[in-house]
Amino acid sequence: MLISMSEAGSFLENCDNAYILVHQSPDGDCIGSGFALHAVLKSMGKRSAVICCDPFLKKFDYITAVENNTDFEPDTVIAVDVADTKLLGKYQEIYGDKVQLCIDHHVSNVNYAERTLLDSKASATCEVLYKLFTCTMGIEISDYTALCLYTGIATDTGCFKFENTSAETHEIAGEIMRQHKLNYAKINREMFDIKTAGRLKMESAVIDIMEYYLDGKVTVICITKELLDSLGVDSNDLDGCANLPLQVEGVEVGITIKEKAPDSYKISMRSTGDVNVSEICSALGGGGHAKASGCALDGKLEDVKKILVEAVRKGMSL
Amino acid sequence: MLISMSEAGSFLENCDNAYILVHQSPDGDCIGSGFALHAVLKSMGKRSAVICCDPFLKKFDYITAVENNTDFEPDTVIAVDVADTKLLGKYQEIYGDKVQLCIDHHVSNVNYAERTLLDSKASATCEVLYKLFTCTMGIEISDYTALCLYTGIATDTGCFKFENTSAETHEIAGEIMRQHKLNYAKINREMFDIKTAGRLKMESAVIDIMEYYLDGKVTVICITKELLDSLGVDSNDLDGCANLPLQVEGVEVGITIKEKAPDSYKISMRSTGDVNVSEICSALGGGGHAKASGCALDGKLEDVKKILVEAVRKGMSL
Repeated sequence: MLISMSEAGSFLENCDNAYILVHQSPDGDCIGSGFALHAVLKSMGKRSAVICCDPFLKKFDYITAVENNTDFEPDTVIAVDVADTKLLGKYQEIYGDKVQLCIDHHVSNVNYAERTLLDSKASATCEVLYKLFTCTMGIEISDYTALCLYTGIATDTGCFKFENTSAETHEIAGEIMRQHKLNYAKINREMFDIKTAGRLKMESAVIDIMEYYLDGKVTVICITKELLDSLGVDSNDLDGCANLPLQVEGVEVGITIKEKAPDSYKISMRSTGDVNVSEICSALGGGGHAKASGCALDGKLEDVKKILVEAVRKGMSL
Repeated sequence: MLISMSEAGSFLENCDNAYILVHQSPDGDCIGSGFALHAVLKSMGKRSAVICCDPFLKKFDYITAVENNTDFEPDTVIAVDVADTKLLGKYQEIYGDKVQLCIDHHVSNVNYAERTLLDSKASATCEVLYKLFTCTMGIEISDYTALCLYTGIATDTGCFKFENTSAETHEIAGEIMRQHKLNYAKINREMFDIKTAGRLKMESAVIDIMEYYLDGKVTVICITKELLDSLGVDSNDLDGCANLPLQVEGVEVGITIKEKAPDSYKISMRSTGDVNVSEICSALGGGGHAKASGCALDGKLEDVKKILVEAVRKGMSL
């Protein structure tokens, strides 16, 4: 059931002993949302804990290094930034059908919870929470909560770069910064600029092996097991690498081919906007969004590449 | 003479036939400022032209591809985003001592103009102009002018990432986006994400040759003529590369050594914050800011590296 801001506010005011579930492979928005809600509930004298099936990355220590004792029986189960219970990992079985309140911004939210506060126009769940806490519930948030919420908004918008950034996103960032004098630039540097040595090595290698097709409109990178072994990098360093082929001037479609097993490949396809890669990937048995889709193909790498480039050529009507 | 917003507004209302000077190696802020002012003066029925000693990069076509006829004798000379007449290049001699109004945000502005509107708290000259046009002069800016001003603010703040981003910066971006429904994400992609193939090759090579010192707290890259030749890249592709060594996790000081002539090197030193590289470079005969400084050293490359690393070790009290 979709509920309003004030209904969500009332629910929070009346709950206690809450487990706050966030999604697997936790990112800045679900971590920021989860710990902001944890802090706000604590300030209201309530017990809560943030629960995730995966560990939090070290770069989020400034958010996650707080008291977070999970050793109690929850009376309340809340999910933040979780569009589908599948994303709860090992907690799906335990809590998937027990979520009393979900707060989210994903248009793809499958409405699994008893109550869902959904604002699909919001750039981030942290943007929804900012409005809920300050406008609806009239809470004066702490510097720590402000930092949590800023982190979620900044990370989900690529630091106000992507098209999910609205006038309201900037207005909220402005309000947060006006009321809380904190080192936002330092957070942004940690979130956007700093890379592990392994990640840098991987990016360098990917640029070196990038192939150009169709007059440079299409780029292809192949990440084989051999390549990963030779670089000594692990799968953490591959996070988000599907976006790398799009950074070249003139490219419209970027294809990343990852070797899963011998002669078996997982493909990520990204579009800068004009080409619908969802259609192209659907024709190959996959699917996704217009700008970000994927599929799986078996065969020799050279044949897989040919199939993909030919499919894109057709999709671009070249 | 420093003047107020309203004095600057009056000056613009009473001027005509204006040359608008912007600085050499023009960036998003001076181009955005120059062409925004050009458009506003035109909307007031006045003749103007943007003047620059260097060509505008192609990625700014959406701003610069407008009527910009310089074929008239100026009655008015205005400089925007120009902190010092040295930055006018070949126009310094002609107009350096004739600038009637300078609008700027650089704290380093040397106050060379008859009148200077300076707001060193502003993230960008475009932020100063937004307030001047809308608050002081009561002008309803066009979509085109909004795009110019957004571009300057976004580029000078690294898309709202750097510490010059204030609450007001976000508030202004919010106002611009609320009143002008434009494709800001597309501009951001062009400004921040897209790289030439040459630039990518250069970044890849730089990562490959990066050296780590003092437990990974210091990174050094050496850009020799031999390296540039082997990559076939030109100096445009080097723009901003001094920031590359800072992107590695744990690095506090990044050093970029560029070969100018055999056994002669120009050094850029960048700090993530805690180490004052201005002091280190001053001790080596150079100087600059606490977070970004430089110097020049002659000698064999290996000796130059040793001198630099030792100077940083001392500066970090290690």
